[in-house]
Amino acid sequence: MKVFTTPTSLDRVLEPSPDMKESVMAVEKIVGYNFKNKKLLEEALTHPSFTGSASYQRLEVLGDSALNHAVTNYFFCMADYQKFTQGQITKLRSANAGNLNLARVAVRHGLYRYLRRNAPDLDDQVREFTEAVINGEEMVESEEAKVLADIVESVAAAIYIELNFDLDKLWMKFKPLLDPIFTLENLHDHPKTELNEFCQKNGKDYEIKLRPRHETRNVSIADVYVDGEFIASGSSNKKKGARVYAAKEAVNKLCQSVVVDDGSFQEEVA
Amino acid sequence: MKVFTTPTSLDRVLEPSPDMKESVMAVEKIVGYNFKNKKLLEEALTHPSFTGSASYQRLEVLGDSALNHAVTNYFFCMADYQKFTQGQITKLRSANAGNLNLARVAVRHGLYRYLRRNAPDLDDQVREFTEAVINGEEMVESEEAKVLADIVESVAAAIYIELNFDLDKLWMKFKPLLDPIFTLENLHDHPKTELNEFCQKNGKDYEIKLRPRHETRNVSIADVYVDGEFIASGSSNKKKGARVYAAKEAVNKLCQSVVVDDGSFQEEVA
Repeated sequence: MKVFTTPTSLDRVLEPSPDMKESVMAVEKIVGYNFKNKKLLEEALTHPSFTGSASYQRLEVLGDSALNHAVTNYFFCMADYQKFTQGQITKLRSANAGNLNLARVAVRHGLYRYLRRNAPDLDDQVREFTEAVINGEEMVESEEAKVLADIVESVAAAIYIELNFDLDKLWMKFKPLLDPIFTLENLHDHPKTELNEFCQKNGKDYEIKLRPRHETRNVSIADVYVDGEFIASGSSNKKKGARVYAAKEAVNKLCQSVVVDDGSFQEEVA
Repeated sequence: MKVFTTPTSLDRVLEPSPDMKESVMAVEKIVGYNFKNKKLLEEALTHPSFTGSASYQRLEVLGDSALNHAVTNYFFCMADYQKFTQGQITKLRSANAGNLNLARVAVRHGLYRYLRRNAPDLDDQVREFTEAVINGEEMVESEEAKVLADIVESVAAAIYIELNFDLDKLWMKFKPLLDPIFTLENLHDHPKTELNEFCQKNGKDYEIKLRPRHETRNVSIADVYVDGEFIASGSSNKKKGARVYAAKEAVNKLCQSVVVDDGSFQEEVA
C-alpha cells in the first residue's frame, strides 16, 4: 500500500506561465519526462531572486533528501553489501549526491539558462564556475555551486512528486543524468584529504599557508609545506580555492616523488 | 519496476547467535516485525565496542537516510504542500528524525538494554540520559544520544532491507514507534532559538555567559542577560547543557513577563 502519494493539490493538469513555456519544454526534453502539472517544473526552475512566484526552495528540500536516499539505496543494493565500510558509503554518497557533483550535472546538461531569476551577480559566478568545470578544474563549494545543485534537486523533486513518490522510478529516470556514477574505483578523494592521508601514511606534518593578501594583489595564493619543506603552491580568486589547488598540486608532486632515506622528498627518475 | 531490492546475500533465513537470541526476540516484539534474516537484526543490535562481529555502523547510514527521507515525504504528502516554508520542513524533519528525538524513541521503547556492547562508560552516560528523558528535561546532543539514535536507525534499516527497500511499508511499520510526530502545532523550538527569536522580536540584545568553572566547582552554570539585565540561570555538568537550561528558564520567565514602557521586564500580574 502506498502512503506517500502525490497531494491532490498537485495532481492536476496545469500549463506553465507564458514566459516559462519554452524553458519548461526544454527541461522536459533534457530530463526525458513530460509533466502533467507543468507548474511544478516551473516552480523548480524559479530562483528565489525572482519575486511574485513560488521559488524552488521547498522542492529543493524534498529533492535533496530523495537523491541522497536513492544514492544510498543504490550502493546498498547494487554492490555486495559487506564490501563497503560506513566511511566509504558516506564518501560515495557525498561524491554522487553532494552539491559539487550535482552542480557539475547542472553544467553538463545546461540547466542554468532555464532558471527564471533576477540575479546578475550570480550569472557572472555561474559563468566562471561553468568554465572551470569545462576546463576540468578542481571545484570548491561555493554559492553558485549550491544554486546549480539546487536546480538539479528541485527538478528531481518535481519528477518524484509526479511519479507518486516512487523512488525506484525516480532513480530509473534520473540516474542517466547523474552518470557516470562515482564508485570506489573511480573516486578520487578531495585533494586536502589526499594530502592529509599521504602525510599520515608517511609520518609527515604538512601545512597549507596563505600568503598575505597585500603581497599577492587581487588573488589568493597558498603554499604547501611538508615537514617545513616547500612543495607546491596554488592560486585562485578565493582563499578556499587557493588552498585546494595548492593541495592538489602538492599531491601530484608527492606522488611522483619518493621519500629518500633522510626523510626528504626527491623526484623519481623513470 | 523495483530497482532497489534486498541483496541476495541478505535475503536468507538466518538464526541469530545463541547469545543474541533473547535480545532479537525482544526487539522483534517491540517493533512488531518478525525477521526472516535474524542476523540482520543482530547486526543492528551490535555496538562497535563489541568486537568479533559486524556492528550497526553500516546499517545506521542506511537507516538515517531512510528515516530522514520518510519524514520529509510525510510532511510533503500529509499536509497541504503550500503550507510549509523550506525552513519549517527542515525544522520538522530535524525535530522528528534528528538524533535527539530518535534517542528519546530508543529510551521510550527500552532498546539500549538489548544492545550487545562492551562499553561501561557508555552505560553510565545512557543511564543519566534516560533519567533526564523520564524527568522531561531539555536534552542536548551528546555521545550517548548519538548511540541511542544509531540503534533506532539501524533497526529501521534492518526492517527496510527485509521489506525490500519499500519506504511506504517501512513508514507504516515504524511510524507507531516514532509517535507522537512533532507537527508545527506541537513543535517547540530549541530554547536558544526561542530566546533569540523573542529578543529579535522585542528589539533586545541577549547574552548567555558561563560562570568561571573555578567558582562553580564541578558543575557548569550559565546566566542569561537581556539588555544587560540578569534574567535567569541554568546548571548542568556540561557547558552546553547549562546554556540550554539557562535559555529555557529565561524564555519561561520572559513569556510570563511584559515589557514595560522603559524597556525593562516586569512580572505580569494575573
